[in-house]
Amino acid sequence: MANSKYEYVKREFEFHRHLPASNWIVVRIDGCHFHRFSELHAFEKPNDDRALRLMNACATSMLEKFPDIVIAYGVSDEYSFVFREKTEFYKRRESKNISLCVSYFTIVYGMKWKDFFPNNDLKEPPYFDGRVVCYPNINTIRDYLAWRQVDCHINNQYNTCFWALVKSGKTEKEAHQALKGTSSKDKNKLLLQQFQVNYNDEPAMFRKGSTVYRDKVKTDDCGNPIKRTREAITVSNFDLIGPEFWENHQYILGEG
Amino acid sequence: MANSKYEYVKREFEFHRHLPASNWIVVRIDGCHFHRFSELHAFEKPNDDRALRLMNACATSMLEKFPDIVIAYGVSDEYSFVFREKTEFYKRRESKNISLCVSYFTIVYGMKWKDFFPNNDLKEPPYFDGRVVCYPNINTIRDYLAWRQVDCHINNQYNTCFWALVKSGKTEKEAHQALKGTSSKDKNKLLLQQFQVNYNDEPAMFRKGSTVYRDKVKTDDCGNPIKRTREAITVSNFDLIGPEFWENHQYILGEG
Amino acid sequence: MANSKYEYVKREFEFHRHLPASNWIVVRIDGCHFHRFSELHAFEKPNDDRALRLMNACATSMLEKFPDIVIAYGVSDEYSFVFREKTEFYKRRESKNISLCVSYFTIVYGMKWKDFFPNNDLKEPPYFDGRVVCYPNINTIRDYLAWRQVDCHINNQYNTCFWALVKSGKTEKEAHQALKGTSSKDKNKLLLQQFQVNYNDEPAMFRKGSTVYRDKVKTDDCGNPIKRTREAITVSNFDLIGPEFWENHQYILGEG
Amino acid sequence: MANSKYEYVKREFEFHRHLPASNWIVVRIDGCHFHRFSELHAFEKPNDDRALRLMNACATSMLEKFPDIVIAYGVSDEYSFVFREKTEFYKRRESKNISLCVSYFTIVYGMKWKDFFPNNDLKEPPYFDGRVVCYPNINTIRDYLAWRQVDCHINNQYNTCFWALVKSGKTEKEAHQALKGTSSKDKNKLLLQQFQVNYNDEPAMFRKGSTVYRDKVKTDDCGNPIKRTREAITVSNFDLIGPEFWENHQYILGEG
Repeated sequence: MANSKYEYVKREFEFHRHLPASNWIVVRIDGCHFHRFSELHAFEKPNDDRALRLMNACATSMLEKFPDIVIAYGVSDEYSFVFREKTEFYKRRESKNISLCVSYFTIVYGMKWKDFFPNNDLKEPPYFDGRVVCYPNINTIRDYLAWRQVDCHINNQYNTCFWALVKSGKTEKEAHQALKGTSSKDKNKLLLQQFQVNYNDEPAMFRKGSTVYRDKVKTDDCGNPIKRTREAITVSNFDLIGPEFWENHQYILGEG
Repeated sequence: MANSKYEYVKREFEFHRHLPASNWIVVRIDGCHFHRFSELHAFEKPNDDRALRLMNACATSMLEKFPDIVIAYGVSDEYSFVFREKTEFYKRRESKNISLCVSYFTIVYGMKWKDFFPNNDLKEPPYFDGRVVCYPNINTIRDYLAWRQVDCHINNQYNTCFWALVKSGKTEKEAHQALKGTSSKDKNKLLLQQFQVNYNDEPAMFRKGSTVYRDKVKTDDCGNPIKRTREAITVSNFDLIGPEFWENHQYILGEG
Repeated sequence: MANSKYEYVKREFEFHRHLPASNWIVVRIDGCHFHRFSELHAFEKPNDDRALRLMNACATSMLEKFPDIVIAYGVSDEYSFVFREKTEFYKRRESKNISLCVSYFTIVYGMKWKDFFPNNDLKEPPYFDGRVVCYPNINTIRDYLAWRQVDCHINNQYNTCFWALVKSGKTEKEAHQALKGTSSKDKNKLLLQQFQVNYNDEPAMFRKGSTVYRDKVKTDDCGNPIKRTREAITVSNFDLIGPEFWENHQYILGEG
Repeated sequence: MANSKYEYVKREFEFHRHLPASNWIVVRIDGCHFHRFSELHAFEKPNDDRALRLMNACATSMLEKFPDIVIAYGVSDEYSFVFREKTEFYKRRESKNISLCVSYFTIVYGMKWKDFFPNNDLKEPPYFDGRVVCYPNINTIRDYLAWRQVDCHINNQYNTCFWALVKSGKTEKEAHQALKGTSSKDKNKLLLQQFQVNYNDEPAMFRKGSTVYRDKVKTDDCGNPIKRTREAITVSNFDLIGPEFWENHQYILGEG
């Protein structure tokens, strides 16, 4: 039945924007006011292993739910999801891409919370913002992931120093002051000399962030000489900046 | 510390769209695959009182969280949130508006689920899509709300007939067939004659949908003759199509 | 006959953006490299009467050609065209609005050049850029026009001083230096004391810019007591900032 | 001097859209109401050699003016201009790209008219619309050009038949009727059998459209054995659908 008199409000004002074809689509979600949220829920500093594994579990659910996501990369309270170049997910409608990803990620975060924080009730609702960006070729989508991983390194190295200083008795202000203008090398030296910490021995998940993708796993069925591969969604902490990961997993970006 | 080599991926590809000033901003969220979700969780048909009150509770949380939402209107598994004309919520950035609203609504839905379905665990994650539309003046924003309420009426009247027929023994196909081409008047007659149901006696929440807004409540402090008003977030099932609600609540759209 | 194999390049990449309904649409065009163009064609400084009247003639042609333009305002080498709020000009497609306006204006400029510069051949092609902006109500569209007219005043007063100083023997650098930091009042004093020029006696076209609109003209047919009005496209140099022009011409923005 | 009170109309309403990096930018211009314009100026049917050469001359001027245009393709009253993938022409602002191209093309059309129609004054202003489309890689930009050239072929073959029929005495209606549902092969047969015209002998400019690009020309300076190349803007009527042109001119799309 028609709803004619008022339907003009849709026809004349509601426009659907479609993302251009032949572009990799990135949806990046990011925790909103997570500084506050992490304090309220007593996250460990600089990295809370449970919180990061919860983020990874949500990302894994995303790949299970949305087959067109070929790879995801996460660090801290943000996660980037890369839809394959030729995806027709909701006809590439921008608002659908953003809203469905952020909504699904959020609800899974809430539902899996108890698995990672069994003794810790949610004191306020965790929520995320989202944005969408298109990359027209493999070089730019790889550079996008490298950009996030470099950012991870810079932030994590800083935070590792910062919290080491704070835990050693400095105020937060003094810790920031001590790190001002220091180079990457300076920071490694500081960790080693003052705290006997070799930064490169820190857990890879903290230093490299987490990558979620479908790994091709060989299945060897009971001595059967015919080997098959199946896809298994996998979380790793590989380097995405150099060529090695990509050479070993060409199918991830290779099949468009 | 700079991240210079890769930063171009943000600078050259990530664009922020801002919604034009002096426009009412509507964010409408809508359940994704809720037909399936409602069956899986045994929602009553055609309307599940608990599910609707859960939606209303989430909308109430939205108005508590985001002061720039002046009114919200919901029906079935959708809800529209109207931000005031002059809101500077995240500088009117489109992706922030969509993603934060849909994310916050979703998590609250998950967290409040148990309050409305105490004996009913979530069997799969509920999630929502979202979109944003701008309306340049009071006439068009009122027509938007009227459009949703007319839609509510059309759908609810149809569903009331449909489920009455199905519950009386017809197959779903037969029920659709029986209703094909019927007018609004025909449907009311059918309900009355076959099922002794006066459609206008159905609950207002089913027929009119739900409106959430800040009501001005008079507070009379202990015999003090000076009366003050405070705002109380209120859920009602008023008619938004005619002028009455708006005449009695001019401040809702009147203060921009 | 179909062109199927390649048609995807249109379907998947070419998107039409439509401007939102119930908004006044402004197309503003602006001369490209007109500093150079004006020197090459020996325009008088600070204002060339012929060049301004040519711009006005082009704007008049625009109103003749496009009935949905209700008013236009021009200064120097720029002109703004206001399409009525409800215009359906090319279904409000953005690229059509920009391109057709700028193309038509440009060709008329070229074709009318000889009428205003009879002894002066075009030495290089004059061309213009264009942009489109939407305004949702009468206040904002009036403020848009006021914004351009205030800009006209600021620039013209400065240029009047600047060229008076240069013509009196100062270098351009010295002239800029002399005007640095001066107020509007200072500039009027400078003109009066050094050059015996009362700025308010300068031609209104220079001080106020030009407005093109359809005036309602009474036609008194041969002593016939029945008076009719017809519309005549008119160029004037009214003040658009205060209320007077708008009170006397309410029909311009009043009929949507 | 500030213009503060009204500047909000720019800040809050005027948005600049930038085209995404690493995409070939196509600006396609198209004659507006050229059916009428061509009749008014007595263009020959189905193709007017002078009108096509005027279009080509304008396109040549475009490549002279805008070095970032690497190739242009035209047919009938339309022309497509391809900006190189990495162009920073006006920071890739969409409205600048559209408006400057369409404005410059239009004015050159007006100024060169007399060179091609010396005995034929402009009876009304010729003007063009314009649009902009992005293509993310060489395959899609080549397919774009192929799409236009296939279209040229389809339209030109049809028009050649149509006007042969009309010139032989049929009405326009009868000619359309006679061609309804005919294949490409049917049309060639019709031309050959009824009019002794071998379609493949028609001028390449009519059948293939025109391509404008910078050719690398060897310059042999006075017996000097050192050969240099310089670029010469060239109009040709090559096939752009097959690989040959592209293999012989790899530098056109190869240098980004």
